[in-house]
Amino acid sequence: MSTEQQQFQLIEENELSLQLIDAQYALKDTHGQKNAKSLVILVNGIELAGKGEAVKQLREWVDPRYLRVKADQPRPLNERQTFWQPYARFIPAEGQIMVLFGNWYTDLLSTAMHVANPIDESMFDHYVEQMRAFEQDLKNNHVDVIKIWFDLPWKSLQKRLDDIDPSEMHWHRLHGLDWRSRKQYDAIQRLRQRFTEDWIIIDGEDVTRRDQQFAQTILAALKHCPDYPAKGSKTWSPASIPKALLQPSREPVDQNTYKDELKKLTRKVASAMRMDQRNVVIVFEGMDAAGKGGAIKRLVKKLDPREYEIHTIGAPEKYELRRPYLWRFWTKLQPEDKITIFDRSWYGRVLVERIEELISPAQWQASYAEINRFENDLIEAQTVIIKFWLAISKDEQAERFKAREQTPHKRFKITDEDWRNRERWEDYLQAAADMFEHTSTDQAPWHVIATDEKDSARLQILKTILKQLGVS
Amino acid sequence: MSTEQQQFQLIEENELSLQLIDAQYALKDTHGQKNAKSLVILVNGIELAGKGEAVKQLREWVDPRYLRVKADQPRPLNERQTFWQPYARFIPAEGQIMVLFGNWYTDLLSTAMHVANPIDESMFDHYVEQMRAFEQDLKNNHVDVIKIWFDLPWKSLQKRLDDIDPSEMHWHRLHGLDWRSRKQYDAIQRLRQRFTEDWIIIDGEDVTRRDQQFAQTILAALKHCPDYPAKGSKTWSPASIPKALLQPSREPVDQNTYKDELKKLTRKVASAMRMDQRNVVIVFEGMDAAGKGGAIKRLVKKLDPREYEIHTIGAPEKYELRRPYLWRFWTKLQPEDKITIFDRSWYGRVLVERIEELISPAQWQASYAEINRFENDLIEAQTVIIKFWLAISKDEQAERFKAREQTPHKRFKITDEDWRNRERWEDYLQAAADMFEHTSTDQAPWHVIATDEKDSARLQILKTILKQLGVS
Repeated sequence: MSTEQQQFQLIEENELSLQLIDAQYALKDTHGQKNAKSLVILVNGIELAGKGEAVKQLREWVDPRYLRVKADQPRPLNERQTFWQPYARFIPAEGQIMVLFGNWYTDLLSTAMHVANPIDESMFDHYVEQMRAFEQDLKNNHVDVIKIWFDLPWKSLQKRLDDIDPSEMHWHRLHGLDWRSRKQYDAIQRLRQRFTEDWIIIDGEDVTRRDQQFAQTILAALKHCPDYPAKGSKTWSPASIPKALLQPSREPVDQNTYKDELKKLTRKVASAMRMDQRNVVIVFEGMDAAGKGGAIKRLVKKLDPREYEIHTIGAPEKYELRRPYLWRFWTKLQPEDKITIFDRSWYGRVLVERIEELISPAQWQASYAEINRFENDLIEAQTVIIKFWLAISKDEQAERFKAREQTPHKRFKITDEDWRNRERWEDYLQAAADMFEHTSTDQAPWHVIATDEKDSARLQILKTILKQLGVS
Repeated sequence: MSTEQQQFQLIEENELSLQLIDAQYALKDTHGQKNAKSLVILVNGIELAGKGEAVKQLREWVDPRYLRVKADQPRPLNERQTFWQPYARFIPAEGQIMVLFGNWYTDLLSTAMHVANPIDESMFDHYVEQMRAFEQDLKNNHVDVIKIWFDLPWKSLQKRLDDIDPSEMHWHRLHGLDWRSRKQYDAIQRLRQRFTEDWIIIDGEDVTRRDQQFAQTILAALKHCPDYPAKGSKTWSPASIPKALLQPSREPVDQNTYKDELKKLTRKVASAMRMDQRNVVIVFEGMDAAGKGGAIKRLVKKLDPREYEIHTIGAPEKYELRRPYLWRFWTKLQPEDKITIFDRSWYGRVLVERIEELISPAQWQASYAEINRFENDLIEAQTVIIKFWLAISKDEQAERFKAREQTPHKRFKITDEDWRNRERWEDYLQAAADMFEHTSTDQAPWHVIATDEKDSARLQILKTILKQLGVS
C-alpha cells in the first residue's frame, strides 16, 4: 500500500456524495466572481487499474449534470500541431468540471510507445516541461488542473487479464498495447516516472479505496481556493519608449515607384507565404487609423480567399470571458490553417485590457510570459509568427479621424471610443513599449512600421514579411 | 449577358459601400430582437470566374469586422457523416454574416467529379433535396441563406488560364481539377444545372459588373426581412394521450430474477453497442424522477468511459440562443462518437419550451419536421437512434420527490422547479402525446417505458436497445 493511500480515511458513501455535491454547487456558484474557477482532471494510468470504474463511481456520487467526461483515442504528437490544440476546446468554463481521459499525456505516452521512430528522452522531457508550463498557465487563469495516475502492479494486472471476460476486452485492445508483455509494462512505468512526480498516484488494487481516494482527491480539488495575486510586481519598471513610437519617421515614396514596387511585392509575398512549408501567422497591432486594414488588403491582394483567414479581434464574448484569456486564440488557430492574419490579437491583453484596467497589474504582467509560451509552442509546431506595430503620429491620426468623419462610407471606422482612446495616447505608447520589451523574442520579434506615409509603410510591411520568411 | 445581369444598375462605389455598411449595422442591431437574423452566403462556381476577387472586393466595401469568410478544401461526402456536420459550427449567430467558400455543394461536386466510384444521379439529386431542406430549416430559424454561382464560358476560362502567371496557379491546382479539359468543364456545368435553379448566377466576364452584382445581391439579402409566422396551424389537432402515459403499468420483478437478468443484459447491451457498425444515439426523455439517471447508469455499466459520451441537456447558453435551436445538437454529435447518450435532448423544443411558452405555437409545430429531418440525416449517415420516454405515475413521482427531499445527498435532484413542472402534468402528457404522434418514425420510433417499477423498467430499456440493434 502506497503512502498516499495511508493518508486518507474512508468516508461513508452518502456523506462523501453529499460533500461532493455541495462542493460542486459551490464551484458552480463562483461563476462570474473573483474566485471563480473550473477544474480539469487528467486521468491516466495502467490498463485495468480501474480509472474507468473510478470515474463511473464518481459520476454516481456527484451531480452528473456538472461533470463532463471527454475521452478520445490517443493520437500521436504531431510536429505540425501543438500538444494542446486537440484539447483546447474542452477546457471548461468557470464553474465547470471536465475529466479528460484522453489528454496530452496520453498522446505523449502513445508517441513514445508506438511510433516506429519513438521520440528520444530529451524530447520527451522537453514535452513534459512544456505541458507543465501550459498547466501552470491554466492554473493562473482560474482553471485548476489535477493529474491522477491509476497504478497497478504487474502481477495484479496479469491476474485481471486472466479474469476478464474476453467479450469485454474490446476497448483496451483499441489502445494497441500488449499488456501481457512485461517489457512493455516496464517501459511504460519507466516513462511515466519521468512526469508523474506532481501527480496523485492511486493504487488500483483495492476497489473501494481506489474509488474513495479518487473521489476524495476531486473533493479536495473542488474545495481548494487558489490565491490569485491582484497586485503586480513591486519591482516592475516601465520600458523606455522607443523613438520610433514617439516620432514615427516620414519617408514619402514616389507614386510610380510605389505602384511598381507594390505590384512586385504583393506577388512575391503571396507566393512566399504560399510556398513556405510552415504555417504563417501575421499579427497587426497599432493605434486606431494607423492603417491595419489597408495593409492587410495589400497583403492578401494576390491570394485567393481560400488560402487565408483574417480574424478581426474585438471585445471577447461572454462565453470567452469565462475561460482563460488566450483560450479564444487557442481555439481559433487550427493546424490546417495555412495563412492566418490577425487584425488586433492576443496582445489586446497587455494593451486595451491593461489600459482600461479590465485586469489587474498582476494579470497583465503575467501575460507576457504566457504569450511568449503560446507563441513558442506554435513556433515549435512549425509556424512562423510575424508581428507588426503600426506607428502613427498623433497629428496624422487626428487628420485621418477627421477625414473619416467627412467620408460617409468610412464613418463607421470612427467612433467616440476612438477619440477616447486618443486621450490615453501616452498610456498606449507605454504599453506598447513594455510589450516590445517583454514579447519581442528572437523567433518572433516585433516590427515597428512608421505609417504616417501609408505607401512606404505598406511596402515596408511586405518587405519585412519576405525577410522573415527567408525570401530575399 | 444573362438576364440577371441586365436587371441591375451599377451603383456608385462609395454609395454602394455606404449602403452595405448601413445594412450590416442594421442587421447587427437586430440581435436579440424578434426579427433578428444572420446571413450565410454560399459561394461556388467555375474556377477563375472571380469568386475570390468578388469576395475580396466585398470585404473592402463593408465593415470587415462583421463579415467572416471561411474556406476549406472540398472534402468528399462521407457515408458516416451528414453533409452539414463539417459546417455546423460555422453557422453564424444572429447579427453576423458568414461567407462559406467551402460548403456542402463544394463537397457534393467534388464527390461527383473526383471519387473513383462517383455517386449516381439519383443519389446526387437526393443530396440536393436534403441540402435544400436543411437550408429551409436554417431560414425558418432566422439564418438567411443565399447561394451564388460564379459562371464563366469555356472560351473565357481558357483565355484566363493562358493569361495567368504560373506562380499564382497553386491554389486551383489544389482543387485537383483540370480546367483545360473541355469534358470536365461540361461535366461540371451539367452537374451544377441539377442544383442551381434557386441560385443567383453571376457572370464572371465583366469584372466590375461581377463585383457589383455580387455586392448588390448581398445588400438585398441584408435588407430582406423575412416574415416569421407567430401563430400555429389553425387546423392543429392534439393527439390523444396513450394509456401508457395516463396509467403506466406496474409489473414488479422478483429480486433474484432482476439481478441475474440485469447482469446478463448489461453485458449483452454493452457488447451490442460496441460491435454495431453504426454510431448509436440513445435519447432519454420523461417526467422528473422518472429514472433517467438510473437507467443510464445501468446502460453504461459494462462500458469504459472512453467508449461513450453522456450529454445532460439543460437550458441553452446565451451563444446557443443566438442560433437555430438544433445548432447545439448539430455541433455536439461528431461522426467519430461511437455511443452517445442524451439525458434530455432536442425534444426539449416540443416539451419544456412549448409548455413554458418560450416559443410560439408556429415554432414548436414546425420543430417536429425539423427534428425528423435532423434524425433522418443522422440515420442516413449510419447512426441508429433509440428514443425512450420514461412514464411515471403522478403518485409515484410525488413519493420519489419526497424521498429525495429526505435524503441529503439526493436533495440536489429536487428543486422548486420540479414541483412547478408537476403542476403542468397534463400539459406535459399532451406535449408527449403530440411528440409521439409527430416524431415516432419507422426508423426512430419512441419507446414508452413504464417506470413506477424501476427494476422492470431498467430491464425493459436494455431489452429494447438489444431489439433495436437487431440482437436477439
